[in-house]
Amino acid sequence: MASDGPIRTRRPAFSRWLAASNNITQQFLAIGVDPDFISMAGGLPAAEFYPTEAIAEATQLALARWGAGALEYGPIEGFAPLRQMIAARISRETGRRFAVDNVLLTVGAMQGLDLLGKVLIDPGERIVAQFPTYVGALDAWRPRLPVYEPLDWSPDTGTGVAALAAAKFVYTVPNYSNPTGALVPTAARLTLLEKVLEAGTWLVEDDPYLPLQYDGPAGPSLLALNGALEPAGPYRGPVIYLGTLSKSIVPGLRVGWVIAAPEMIQMLALAKQSSDLASSMLTHAVALELLEAGRETAHVPAIVRHYVERRDALCAAADAELAEWFDWEIPPGGMFVWMRRRHPSIDTDQLYGLALEQKVAFVPGSVFDPQGRLRSAMRVNFTRNPPSVLREGVSRLAEATKNLLASND
Amino acid sequence: MASDGPIRTRRPAFSRWLAASNNITQQFLAIGVDPDFISMAGGLPAAEFYPTEAIAEATQLALARWGAGALEYGPIEGFAPLRQMIAARISRETGRRFAVDNVLLTVGAMQGLDLLGKVLIDPGERIVAQFPTYVGALDAWRPRLPVYEPLDWSPDTGTGVAALAAAKFVYTVPNYSNPTGALVPTAARLTLLEKVLEAGTWLVEDDPYLPLQYDGPAGPSLLALNGALEPAGPYRGPVIYLGTLSKSIVPGLRVGWVIAAPEMIQMLALAKQSSDLASSMLTHAVALELLEAGRETAHVPAIVRHYVERRDALCAAADAELAEWFDWEIPPGGMFVWMRRRHPSIDTDQLYGLALEQKVAFVPGSVFDPQGRLRSAMRVNFTRNPPSVLREGVSRLAEATKNLLASND
Repeated sequence: MASDGPIRTRRPAFSRWLAASNNITQQFLAIGVDPDFISMAGGLPAAEFYPTEAIAEATQLALARWGAGALEYGPIEGFAPLRQMIAARISRETGRRFAVDNVLLTVGAMQGLDLLGKVLIDPGERIVAQFPTYVGALDAWRPRLPVYEPLDWSPDTGTGVAALAAAKFVYTVPNYSNPTGALVPTAARLTLLEKVLEAGTWLVEDDPYLPLQYDGPAGPSLLALNGALEPAGPYRGPVIYLGTLSKSIVPGLRVGWVIAAPEMIQMLALAKQSSDLASSMLTHAVALELLEAGRETAHVPAIVRHYVERRDALCAAADAELAEWFDWEIPPGGMFVWMRRRHPSIDTDQLYGLALEQKVAFVPGSVFDPQGRLRSAMRVNFTRNPPSVLREGVSRLAEATKNLLASND
Repeated sequence: MASDGPIRTRRPAFSRWLAASNNITQQFLAIGVDPDFISMAGGLPAAEFYPTEAIAEATQLALARWGAGALEYGPIEGFAPLRQMIAARISRETGRRFAVDNVLLTVGAMQGLDLLGKVLIDPGERIVAQFPTYVGALDAWRPRLPVYEPLDWSPDTGTGVAALAAAKFVYTVPNYSNPTGALVPTAARLTLLEKVLEAGTWLVEDDPYLPLQYDGPAGPSLLALNGALEPAGPYRGPVIYLGTLSKSIVPGLRVGWVIAAPEMIQMLALAKQSSDLASSMLTHAVALELLEAGRETAHVPAIVRHYVERRDALCAAADAELAEWFDWEIPPGGMFVWMRRRHPSIDTDQLYGLALEQKVAFVPGSVFDPQGRLRSAMRVNFTRNPPSVLREGVSRLAEATKNLLASND
């Protein structure tokens, strides 16, 4: 019974989507461990502001209140009192009443994307997606082998009804998009919604950055715009809205939600049953305590003040050290500055390798492109690190860029 | 901009695997809410024995020890100290050293099954699976559209090497199988392992019931049997082993693990990245405290005493009230008694409907059959309810069976 080399190489191959996969997110989560490294890569909140004591208190209250009930296999849709509270929250945010049947709790917003892929995509089917596209969405849907068409938001010249009708769904991040930080104007939201309704397809609205507003309010959600047009009772429109506590409280609870028509929620729940059976009820009960105590409402303005300072520090340092080689807009919210090259000889995939040598990381544009071809831009995070570290990170990026241009000569 | 009936019906269809899906697990998790109902359906532990105070204490210790570190996006593979502890645990259980690279932490064992499907199955590919087959495994793999061949464990006449070689993997539950409660003899384990090594395929060992041993020890794991044959260093064999804390501590933490060759762990981590990014670090830090404090070691013997009493109460009641219509073996471990009809006129799908009228539930055999055709048996859980409730449940089952036979006359 031999069991070394020759036998192992005969084992069946991995599923074919893995050939097109990459482990860049895994790398970024691992990089965080090296203290000499400056990571401006991940979409990570600032850990030093996490309300750790409030969470410790909330766990005690939750276990005292629910006892073993917080330690069970939950209902697949999530802990009922938290589901109820999220329904009330989205009703408040949109000014339109949503029912509990419109809510599924998920492991962050990320699991919502995975479940959507399971529920809607068969191999070769089409997604119209905001471009460049959030890498997590591409990751989530890659096992389902979809094809992509870029969404053009322009009200007049943008993606047409026929293209929308040919898609299983449309994927959007209207508020402070990942990776670009862009805020989509209200008129463009309304026009897209009208076209989607005419096309008769599903409209995914991914909204994790909603709490991180720096220069005035975010736009009205597609869910709110559509909800206002729908009859009373449970919402039955085409918008599938994803939210999360990862940015406004802490990511480590892994609490997110999907708001959608009841028949979509039921299909997503079947997909969740087949993914992890149910989420941790303890994390749901803790989130409920935090929300009931108003911890999020108190926490968000405090972190927003720090994030504005960080955004401005990053952009000022970039003005001084990177403006010769890159263009960018100052993002009105969210976590990222999207830097586009000014010289065609700057390849951001190549720059990434040289940046790692300088012990600094960003996310190269190629991972936000379903084809992997976008090498003219990079995403730089400003929420994770304090201003002094961001300034040092920008200096290292400038050094890496000089090295790239020198090597190209 | 109309948005009622006609437009909605034009929305794209759900993915085709959902047509073959069912929500029976969702139903069982929901049934638990009606106090008049006796559910002997779910594979649920007894909530009254959950170590709630120990968990409250562990959350405080974990947050005091790790602070914000317990509230971060974790590494995809899981909280490093817990991963290390699980590597040490599996080394102890098997008598063979496993490395951290052999371990991925998952949301219960269920997520391990989902990730395996993503990593190994393309549509139409083959799984050789223990039959009847755990409904959660069928659920997990349905979105990947596999085909099934039943595994026959018999050393001499069982599934041959050619059939194993044609499969992407072999799925087994050697200890106290779900749904049958059967314990596979050591000789049959060894023979299957030899054939799998010759066939050169992957061998999945799902082992959630290991802690629930009532009549002597469980068998040696396929992982231990194979590990003993493999060279030292990280394990590189074909066994993919799934474990969980759901049965031995509480399900609501949702902490499980996969042990496998490093290249398989890396692919599963990519699939996890695309499923939920990472698990709740808080739940991992709490699990670490519980294991370090020896809570599992103390807890398991206490619940095992209760579960033996419950198993015996169920079987005694069934002897008195169901023996005319059903046969079963007393399971040496686990959570279930598998009852097979003695009369061909008993259809367990029909009986299920009549049982619900009597306010009692079991799981009909059909959900454990990839073809949905097994209507000659049912799975009855004995761990969730105390003896008096189990006796009442059996009386209701007897009543439902009488009603079924009367309606067939």
